[in-house]
Amino acid sequence: VRGEIIAIGDELTCGRVVNTTSAYAAARLTAAGHEVIAITTVGDDVDRIGRALLAALDRSEFVIVTGGLGATTDDLTNKAVIHTLKRPATFYPEIFRKIQEYAATAGPEVRLSLEKLAWLPKGAHALHTEAKSAGYFLVQDGKPVFFLPGVPHEMKELLDEAVLARLEVWDGADQKTVRSRLYRLFGLAETEVNRRLRQFEQGKGDLEVKIGYYPVFPEVHVSLSVAGVDQDAVEEVFLALDREIVSRLGEDLYGFDEETLELVVGRGLKDAGCTLALAESCTGGGISARITSVPGSSDYFLGGIVAYSNSLKQELLQVAPPILETHGAVSAACARAMAQGARAAAKADLALSVTGIAGPGGGTPEKPVGTVFMAMDDGADVRDFSFRFTGERWQVQAMASATALDLIRKWLVTRG
Amino acid sequence: VRGEIIAIGDELTCGRVVNTTSAYAAARLTAAGHEVIAITTVGDDVDRIGRALLAALDRSEFVIVTGGLGATTDDLTNKAVIHTLKRPATFYPEIFRKIQEYAATAGPEVRLSLEKLAWLPKGAHALHTEAKSAGYFLVQDGKPVFFLPGVPHEMKELLDEAVLARLEVWDGADQKTVRSRLYRLFGLAETEVNRRLRQFEQGKGDLEVKIGYYPVFPEVHVSLSVAGVDQDAVEEVFLALDREIVSRLGEDLYGFDEETLELVVGRGLKDAGCTLALAESCTGGGISARITSVPGSSDYFLGGIVAYSNSLKQELLQVAPPILETHGAVSAACARAMAQGARAAAKADLALSVTGIAGPGGGTPEKPVGTVFMAMDDGADVRDFSFRFTGERWQVQAMASATALDLIRKWLVTRG
Repeated sequence: VRGEIIAIGDELTCGRVVNTTSAYAAARLTAAGHEVIAITTVGDDVDRIGRALLAALDRSEFVIVTGGLGATTDDLTNKAVIHTLKRPATFYPEIFRKIQEYAATAGPEVRLSLEKLAWLPKGAHALHTEAKSAGYFLVQDGKPVFFLPGVPHEMKELLDEAVLARLEVWDGADQKTVRSRLYRLFGLAETEVNRRLRQFEQGKGDLEVKIGYYPVFPEVHVSLSVAGVDQDAVEEVFLALDREIVSRLGEDLYGFDEETLELVVGRGLKDAGCTLALAESCTGGGISARITSVPGSSDYFLGGIVAYSNSLKQELLQVAPPILETHGAVSAACARAMAQGARAAAKADLALSVTGIAGPGGGTPEKPVGTVFMAMDDGADVRDFSFRFTGERWQVQAMASATALDLIRKWLVTRG
Repeated sequence: VRGEIIAIGDELTCGRVVNTTSAYAAARLTAAGHEVIAITTVGDDVDRIGRALLAALDRSEFVIVTGGLGATTDDLTNKAVIHTLKRPATFYPEIFRKIQEYAATAGPEVRLSLEKLAWLPKGAHALHTEAKSAGYFLVQDGKPVFFLPGVPHEMKELLDEAVLARLEVWDGADQKTVRSRLYRLFGLAETEVNRRLRQFEQGKGDLEVKIGYYPVFPEVHVSLSVAGVDQDAVEEVFLALDREIVSRLGEDLYGFDEETLELVVGRGLKDAGCTLALAESCTGGGISARITSVPGSSDYFLGGIVAYSNSLKQELLQVAPPILETHGAVSAACARAMAQGARAAAKADLALSVTGIAGPGGGTPEKPVGTVFMAMDDGADVRDFSFRFTGERWQVQAMASATALDLIRKWLVTRG
């Protein structure tokens, strides 16, 4: 079903907050087979919210509105709905009772301000009777309109638990089958990926085939969608194209769909029964943070040393002073010593080290900003790698972190 | 001047990529005194791009379009402009020459695909003759329309270097003065912030006053804007309100405008001539990563130990085995020992440690998921803190990281 998303909030139109909720909602709706034809972001303004809502109702079969439902005085979504759709404000005692339970420990002033959350446009239905969060839907011109809070985790909870199921019920029109997959790559340029896959872009008979290319720094993602009425034909074409794409992308394809590089690396380490230690300098803990963002990472990640200062490199990683004096901290020799030191300190199967110049300061003509050395010690062998990344500090750090994770991934692949 | 942003790309309407570029553009435009009245996101579809463009031209004085300018076959922005605005495709030899220089090292197939970037709608002017990135503008119905790449850092570069200055020239209409400031808080609930500031929300005479409340997990941000024709009156009211807001928000106000918690902490450490070391367990390097995201952090940050395993806690932080046996790794006693160990290993003035259970696994009835202990050792004193955070793994980690940074900030304030 075709729908659209309206995100409300001055924090979004002023650019103070990045609109992650709409991306999440769009991803979930797309995964459920719907098509999001537009995402509109407007500020906290009754008139603009109203016009966006009317325009969306005109074009789409369903609308999801996020934000502007809170208890603070700048939340104006309900007011806009009340005016625009001519649905008088109505007090919902059962919603008020829930709010009071939730706010039992809050002071009287907070409770008073929360009463606002129980005044909704006429015809509103609470989305989830047990949810603490604001959120309701109403049916306008036969189309469902969902109102969700703008706070990301509250919106996600209600979307997953209450909206998607209700949308299924409305879903009766065009019963197309859609098969899609996302291919995640690190190490190939977008134009090269396009060159390899361009030949597969045409539709096949009645089936629509769509291949999309997305540079998501520092990665490139590719999507494949096959849609059509004949379920078997869709499946057959999808599987054939999937095989081709996987084969053309080769070893730079690291994962599918929701799989992140840190997830793939973690799974590989766990499957191989390998433990990992890190020694980070210019990435400053960024690789450790990515590794430990994965639940269960303590099964394979022993720890890391963020050796920002030379004294810590000597003290905890046993980097010999002559190495620092002769080659400097940003050198292949230092990276090798750091990897060996981390492996020994943590008694890990594999250790990886990173040392470099993230910038903007610290560069020299011989070692400009972006110069990064890495090393891996797996007990059998110590190998080092040198890179010259470009861009700002965050880009050098992000490229170095992703490259380090990819080195571990490729080490696991080679190891088999 | 009132304008709007159109972001183009299936990756956005499918939710695979979060639209950070529009947030950045909106922030820069707002800071330059413009008003962004809407941000519209549409997929790679000639028809929808065209309609969004016409609607925006109808409502706004300028339009910024991002995305869909690339060399891959799914980039359709130029095609949409050529059709919708009836501006035939025109070859721009000077742009082609630049592209060829840029792609001198690429293979012939890549260079051929890049030729597409030199075919633009009639009337297009390159935004930046030295920029490698695609990007142009044209004037439609007397209104400037800017076309920028969707890749965030390319878009930012062109926006900052070429778009904002050109918009200034168009800016001649309503010469209002706007003064605004963003207040960044950690540790107060949004409703409590609203309660404290509500009384300042009314306009004063001819002046508009706007206070906005933005929960940006785990922080709350508040914006103040004062606008009016009389510059002196705007300044006077702004300064008076600013004083009131700063006073009401108290010690939970950590910074203004673009200042992040890690920036404020880093500046405080540098000003105090203090060096810092960290010992992280459940935050997994996340605090180190935030600290080292700040340029120049090597001036005060010596390093950290991500002691995920107990053996690393013993080996590198000298946590005594009886502490781990009696109290466990998630305990105040272990946090204290970790802080002392980190301070000693790094020879730092101040060390902070974090140990806890980020979840989803690992919780017990006595120590459920979200239980986190921290300690700070400043040489004179070792203090410990205990917390029970709620939410998913990433939320516990984010709350713990922000809380740790805030503890250092408050330590610096108390120290004076």
